[in-house]
Amino acid sequence: MTLILSNDDVSRLLTIHDCIDALEDAYVEIANGRGISRPRSECLAPAGAGKAYGITSSDSIIPKLGVGCSRITSDILTWPKQGASVRRVKLPAAPNGRFVGLVLLFSSETGEPLAIFPDGVIQRMRVGAANGIGVKHLARKDACTVAILGAGWQAGAQLMAVCAVRAIESIRCYSPNPTSRETFSRSLSESLGVPVTVAPSPDAAVDGADIVLCATNAIENVFFERWVRPGLHFSSIKRQEVEVGAMRRADQLAIHTTDWNPVHYETRGFVNPEGSGSKASKLRDEFDFSVVPTLPQIVAGIAPGRQGDQEVTAFINNQGTGYQFAATGAAFYRKAKAAGAGHELPTDWFTEDVHN
Amino acid sequence: MTLILSNDDVSRLLTIHDCIDALEDAYVEIANGRGISRPRSECLAPAGAGKAYGITSSDSIIPKLGVGCSRITSDILTWPKQGASVRRVKLPAAPNGRFVGLVLLFSSETGEPLAIFPDGVIQRMRVGAANGIGVKHLARKDACTVAILGAGWQAGAQLMAVCAVRAIESIRCYSPNPTSRETFSRSLSESLGVPVTVAPSPDAAVDGADIVLCATNAIENVFFERWVRPGLHFSSIKRQEVEVGAMRRADQLAIHTTDWNPVHYETRGFVNPEGSGSKASKLRDEFDFSVVPTLPQIVAGIAPGRQGDQEVTAFINNQGTGYQFAATGAAFYRKAKAAGAGHELPTDWFTEDVHN
Repeated sequence: MTLILSNDDVSRLLTIHDCIDALEDAYVEIANGRGISRPRSECLAPAGAGKAYGITSSDSIIPKLGVGCSRITSDILTWPKQGASVRRVKLPAAPNGRFVGLVLLFSSETGEPLAIFPDGVIQRMRVGAANGIGVKHLARKDACTVAILGAGWQAGAQLMAVCAVRAIESIRCYSPNPTSRETFSRSLSESLGVPVTVAPSPDAAVDGADIVLCATNAIENVFFERWVRPGLHFSSIKRQEVEVGAMRRADQLAIHTTDWNPVHYETRGFVNPEGSGSKASKLRDEFDFSVVPTLPQIVAGIAPGRQGDQEVTAFINNQGTGYQFAATGAAFYRKAKAAGAGHELPTDWFTEDVHN
Repeated sequence: MTLILSNDDVSRLLTIHDCIDALEDAYVEIANGRGISRPRSECLAPAGAGKAYGITSSDSIIPKLGVGCSRITSDILTWPKQGASVRRVKLPAAPNGRFVGLVLLFSSETGEPLAIFPDGVIQRMRVGAANGIGVKHLARKDACTVAILGAGWQAGAQLMAVCAVRAIESIRCYSPNPTSRETFSRSLSESLGVPVTVAPSPDAAVDGADIVLCATNAIENVFFERWVRPGLHFSSIKRQEVEVGAMRRADQLAIHTTDWNPVHYETRGFVNPEGSGSKASKLRDEFDFSVVPTLPQIVAGIAPGRQGDQEVTAFINNQGTGYQFAATGAAFYRKAKAAGAGHELPTDWFTEDVHN
């Protein structure tokens, strides 16, 4: 049987602990060359006034977890202006006002399709889990106070993850929107069982925290060098959240992956409003990442982690990878199967008796 | 509704005429830069003694046909020796002894998944259709006699295609296996309504034919320079079927695509029994393909076709493309929907209300 699973199934069955365990395992594999992660590709074609149609895809194999995986998004895109910049915005153009992102999980032992499920909830959890693994391997063992910059969906996953890897006693949250930071703090206090208080300013949130987590959709810096002090660990879910000076102050700095940009394929004459690859290039020009280890290398013990309580450590989650969907997808599939979740379809519908 | 369709649906609903029409349309689009075809990627990891697990994928967009497409194969591979060479063989390791190759068809207007179906039958038809388009644009208008070298599944599709584009009066078939060439000739005579006779040797098959079609799985030349005479059109479904000298004799020569090799991703230390990219490199070293036009360029009128009845023309179908699945898949989907074919699943199962 091939399982068709939902975001609700992911929310109900997959814990951040599952994701952290699966990703750690998978990172050791890839750091040792035993896993495969095809960098994301993106095909873009015009789709009427100011819009584009895009397919992104990435494929991965983790023999140890017994899976192959394709993650595919099929998006209607726009690029509304925000100040001097543009922001990439997906339109929910599919029936019932929905988005399209799919994970296809295969068995690497038989080739069969094990499951198909949407990528939305698991994508949030993989980001949280990656930064949680950053905390686990880089933050002080006795770190117990956290500042979170941001109060959205990704911020929630960050807090779940940090509480999964350290005995966190208190959390302070700052977001420019007072209502969202209030709502977020109340909700997360309850779900985590750890007091989340609202900070009136980012400085107040960060002051004295052992760990600072950025989880915003800002297109400018939100974490600054002036906040760096001995023993701190900080992390971001995108490169541009962190001031370059702050990265320079880190004794141990890690990025997620050396695959910065998707590989682009565009119709002739298509003008990508974000510039073709220029964003990541600019971010890379500001700082020499060529000698910075990746998180998988740190997890695998190939690159050093924290060397003592006084060091400053940082994890820049510069780019997600399709590989994360293979790892967390494998963990999710095992639990979904055990729980009898999803719609069971005959595997014969997705296999064939001929080939080329 | 998202349709789950089968190879039987393809066989029943999609004609070679549909495929030729759809591909011609799509080739004009891509030759003019209005379509996108991401070259196939292949990820390979070891899967136990002498075996490997592989995922190949390619994505395409054809705005004119309103589709995006991902084609994915998930294979257990072996490389048994054949003389001094190795042959890549897929094992039917999925439940019920089956293979795994899938086409996901999306709407480029809404992003929604329109259909999911196996790639096996359509893959045969796209090869036939491409070579049929080669005949249509390169062979003499009055060509009426055909020689086919090969008597397998692909050979059948080649004959369907050539009969769709020229008023063929007689066909001679040669294959080294007497039983298969007998069976093939009887079966195709009946289905095409054109007499297919058995030739006792390849020379006898080719002698006097206006069009020679190679459709073998040979790893060595099966079509030779000595057979080339004025006015002939010949084609192959793989580069190595045709002797280099024969290609040199063509006044108008076309290849299918400039994307020769899949882009490879392998686990560290994985030894690809076929050599990494070396096969296509060797085939390219023997002949300068850099100045050879592609079939889409000929269909679009960007490169010239036949210039008079005495010219020798040739089409080398050097490599299939995922783009062909988008084009033929779009035609198939329209007919399947009109016929009420397949299993209708709620599109909500494959879409979501969150995104990243």
